[in-house]
Amino acid sequence: MPEFNAPLRDMRFVLHEVFDAPTLWARLPGLADHVDADTADAILQEAAKVTSQLIAPLNRSGDEEGARWQAGKVSTPKGFKAAYDTYIEGGWVGLSGNPEFGGLGMPKMLAVQFEEMLYAANSSFALYSALTSGACLAIDAHASPALKSTYLPPMYEGRWAGSMCLTEAHSGTDLGIIRTRAEPRADGSFSISGSKIFITGGDQDLTENIVHLVLAKLPDAPAGPRGISLFLVPKVLVNDDGSLAEANAVSCGSIEHKMGIKASATCVINFDGARGWLIGEANKGLAAMFTMMNYERLSIGIQGIGCAETSYQNARTYARERLQGRASNGAVAPDKMADPIIVHPDVRRMLLSIKAMTEGGRAFASYVGQQLDLSKYSTDPQEQQDASALVALLTPVAKAFFTDTGLDSCVLGQQVFGGHGYIREWGQEQLVRDVRIAQIYEGTNGIQALDLLGRKVIANGGVALRLFTAQMREFAEQPDKPYARQLLQAVQQLEDLSDWLQARAKADPNEIGAASVEYLQVFGYVAYAWLWARMADVAQRSMPDDPDFYAAKLATAKFYFNRLLPRTASLEQSIRAGCESLFELDAASF
Amino acid sequence: MPEFNAPLRDMRFVLHEVFDAPTLWARLPGLADHVDADTADAILQEAAKVTSQLIAPLNRSGDEEGARWQAGKVSTPKGFKAAYDTYIEGGWVGLSGNPEFGGLGMPKMLAVQFEEMLYAANSSFALYSALTSGACLAIDAHASPALKSTYLPPMYEGRWAGSMCLTEAHSGTDLGIIRTRAEPRADGSFSISGSKIFITGGDQDLTENIVHLVLAKLPDAPAGPRGISLFLVPKVLVNDDGSLAEANAVSCGSIEHKMGIKASATCVINFDGARGWLIGEANKGLAAMFTMMNYERLSIGIQGIGCAETSYQNARTYARERLQGRASNGAVAPDKMADPIIVHPDVRRMLLSIKAMTEGGRAFASYVGQQLDLSKYSTDPQEQQDASALVALLTPVAKAFFTDTGLDSCVLGQQVFGGHGYIREWGQEQLVRDVRIAQIYEGTNGIQALDLLGRKVIANGGVALRLFTAQMREFAEQPDKPYARQLLQAVQQLEDLSDWLQARAKADPNEIGAASVEYLQVFGYVAYAWLWARMADVAQRSMPDDPDFYAAKLATAKFYFNRLLPRTASLEQSIRAGCESLFELDAASF
Repeated sequence: MPEFNAPLRDMRFVLHEVFDAPTLWARLPGLADHVDADTADAILQEAAKVTSQLIAPLNRSGDEEGARWQAGKVSTPKGFKAAYDTYIEGGWVGLSGNPEFGGLGMPKMLAVQFEEMLYAANSSFALYSALTSGACLAIDAHASPALKSTYLPPMYEGRWAGSMCLTEAHSGTDLGIIRTRAEPRADGSFSISGSKIFITGGDQDLTENIVHLVLAKLPDAPAGPRGISLFLVPKVLVNDDGSLAEANAVSCGSIEHKMGIKASATCVINFDGARGWLIGEANKGLAAMFTMMNYERLSIGIQGIGCAETSYQNARTYARERLQGRASNGAVAPDKMADPIIVHPDVRRMLLSIKAMTEGGRAFASYVGQQLDLSKYSTDPQEQQDASALVALLTPVAKAFFTDTGLDSCVLGQQVFGGHGYIREWGQEQLVRDVRIAQIYEGTNGIQALDLLGRKVIANGGVALRLFTAQMREFAEQPDKPYARQLLQAVQQLEDLSDWLQARAKADPNEIGAASVEYLQVFGYVAYAWLWARMADVAQRSMPDDPDFYAAKLATAKFYFNRLLPRTASLEQSIRAGCESLFELDAASF
Repeated sequence: MPEFNAPLRDMRFVLHEVFDAPTLWARLPGLADHVDADTADAILQEAAKVTSQLIAPLNRSGDEEGARWQAGKVSTPKGFKAAYDTYIEGGWVGLSGNPEFGGLGMPKMLAVQFEEMLYAANSSFALYSALTSGACLAIDAHASPALKSTYLPPMYEGRWAGSMCLTEAHSGTDLGIIRTRAEPRADGSFSISGSKIFITGGDQDLTENIVHLVLAKLPDAPAGPRGISLFLVPKVLVNDDGSLAEANAVSCGSIEHKMGIKASATCVINFDGARGWLIGEANKGLAAMFTMMNYERLSIGIQGIGCAETSYQNARTYARERLQGRASNGAVAPDKMADPIIVHPDVRRMLLSIKAMTEGGRAFASYVGQQLDLSKYSTDPQEQQDASALVALLTPVAKAFFTDTGLDSCVLGQQVFGGHGYIREWGQEQLVRDVRIAQIYEGTNGIQALDLLGRKVIANGGVALRLFTAQMREFAEQPDKPYARQLLQAVQQLEDLSDWLQARAKADPNEIGAASVEYLQVFGYVAYAWLWARMADVAQRSMPDDPDFYAAKLATAKFYFNRLLPRTASLEQSIRAGCESLFELDAASF
């Protein structure tokens, strides 16, 4: 039976020691008055308790039972409702929400740690509130004051949930071709009709209401993505006083049978002239939806880290306990029938690969959280603008790189168990099934890579990229810092490759899509190199305070630079081979 | 709903055009009289029919229903028994079996094509007979004449099945610590007691009898792997005339609940003083079992290729039909709402990656099949000995590289479908779940890699490796051959790396385990480079005969050399970083 223990010491290391978050919080007016190091620690401690004791125990039973759909209604697995009720009492749904409407206003940098714990404990459960938090963000940013004051408080409380209705059967990545329509009604609201698929938490039995954020087309809207508007469509209509009125014309047509996240209901949601309210401007719905989507993209990235962390914890325990074979340099447990398998170099390679990628990912997620906090709370316009540019640049990397390496890590964590990893009993196979979706939803990782290279790097001439590489260079150009030389080389490699692609893309736009996935991976490995060098730097300086802990950080950094960072070499070679060999085959000859 | 169409044209290309198998068969006395090009084609055609029409349709229903265990008996999913009865009528179980006992005596090179089809159609179904074929091989090679004549005929017929009983709860990779005991009985048979786990097809309702090949220890056997003997233990005892007698003391204690291959029963098998017969010499059971294990290792490798082929076929069809977005260089279907996604470079990259690895794997499997045929049928002792050495060298590569790239390919094939790949309806997620086991069973891929580098390369001073690299060099040193220069570089890289490791391993045996997995991958990529160069060579020469087919081969070869072979660069860097960074962490600090 898998266990999850929140990696609190590691999270504090990142927050307090690597990024010195409390000092940042103290200088940001929106945060200074209600969060400091002690508050943050207390929140992390409570989060660890809730996730490991309340939510993690429902992970396997939730997978076995799954969400069910009967007579138009979804029921969540046994125990979910009771756990959800306890969970929302803690205020977790509104953790980083707007205090004006009942959110707790905590920094994103702290919230990402909590999100990691939540996914690590139970990805299916996590999704029910992840969508709510994201929907709140879009409502807070773009909806009218009336909608905000009606919807945000019960959503932050978790009494109402949110959903994100984009995909239709014929329209996934290509949202320009959606068919859901919105007809204006005399009272200023709209009548929404259409069918959406793959709606996570589109129906459930946990909350009193579900607030669907729906992309639809107004009459005479321009074709394509510039003709899409965003609507708020509640499952149950709401009276002016905030109480619930009659049901809206929204129904759940069925749920999907999936590889994993089986306790999360993935719904077909039908809108049959349902009443909805415009969020933001007409025909600018995609931009407003992106507020939610960017939130979810980082969140889903963190699913990759969370699942990998749990897989690691279980694989590590197993590797220490499972006796099989002998160490190459002589038995370490001569009194036992065999040595624990952690003596074998290949088992160590697997564990260290997961460890290095998970801890690198945690640091990267925290850095993106820091930039989100700066973009929201900084009073320096330049700092604020730079932070927003960095968030835009780094969000697709976080989403795709965390989840690609998250699958790899869960597969490795399963492999450590040998045959026992393939059977359900140990939970490692569920992690592989659950994490796999994270490479697909919220925009496939291929789409993230196109977003990164096409929009975030090439379209702006590399301005945002240079902001980021300048930060990495600042560290790497201090020769006394650990791994400074290797990091500088890696940053140079990323810069050169970006310049080369910038030039190539002018000649043939297909060069972008031909390079994008591998480019994103190079980007991720270089960024992690910077973070591992920074973590090693802190560890070196702090060594006397906690020698075992910091020595482990240094050892993992060394493994990362020796054995994982070299992966950029092949990725670069493949990218520089260009798009030519992708286009020699006719579609018919595949 | 996934479909499978046997890739007959590609299989003929490999058999007849790349390897000119009929010419080889004609000169081998054991094959010349009963197989030629026409026989082979007829068999492939019939195999295609059986696998795609009879067996593939049970793949999804088998997964949904799963094997069940009740009151000590396993039942296979609906339709399996009827399909199995039809299947064995074709003589497929004994396809390459010994004609003296009713096998068809077909070359392994042909049988590997059939096995690929079988796994591509339905991995769970395939396993029921794959174990039988392997057990027959071990019996034929090591058992007494009496056992052979009693057991082989009904096993080749498929009326009786085989199983492979190695693993115990505390003993998987480390077979030296098994506890199952064998006590001699007065009549020369043995009384077997112990409990085996993870026994594929350990019980089922398809055959009249199951012949378990069981590893056990004789009284006073030496400790460790040199004290293991192999026994034949039938589920039902057999009278002297071959008819079935009473049940043996063999029972199925339960079956596992697994990530995939759910229609294949993975059993706990208890032997409670069951009667068994020694196969081969006492205490030399592991060597005898390896006859079966090596067969199964190649077979399980082929599972990787088969699953990848099916994933590819479905992804290709989907990519041609799914309309989403527009081509970067202008719409190709301006009359439709969007272009088929096969216009996008990243979709092409995914498809070509699967295609290049699957076709490379098929050629490699066929080459190993050729060496197996030479080792069995050649009348030239040197040729025979070289072929055996090559089989020993290449079997772990086939098992691990086919299945590692098989998982990657199935994940890519699922990714092409976006969200539709994650739901059960399209079948892509089942392929990922089913293929995942192939990296684990029959010796994890980590164990294969240790076998390759430790035993097959380093222990014999690289003798077998040089046999193989000499063949690759022979091609690469002809400068007019396609990709000769790149291939020569790649072979040189493999040789240099092997020499380097040979030297390093002397200083520290942990260098073997630290390098082995990545070394095996370098080996695989270099071997595929040789095979792709050979395939390109044939395609160039044959172009006028079938321009579209050969042009596709040339395009795929180009993609392989441009975009996949570069992966060896990073693998080499990681290997050359050595084992040091794997051993800096205490077990407690992980």
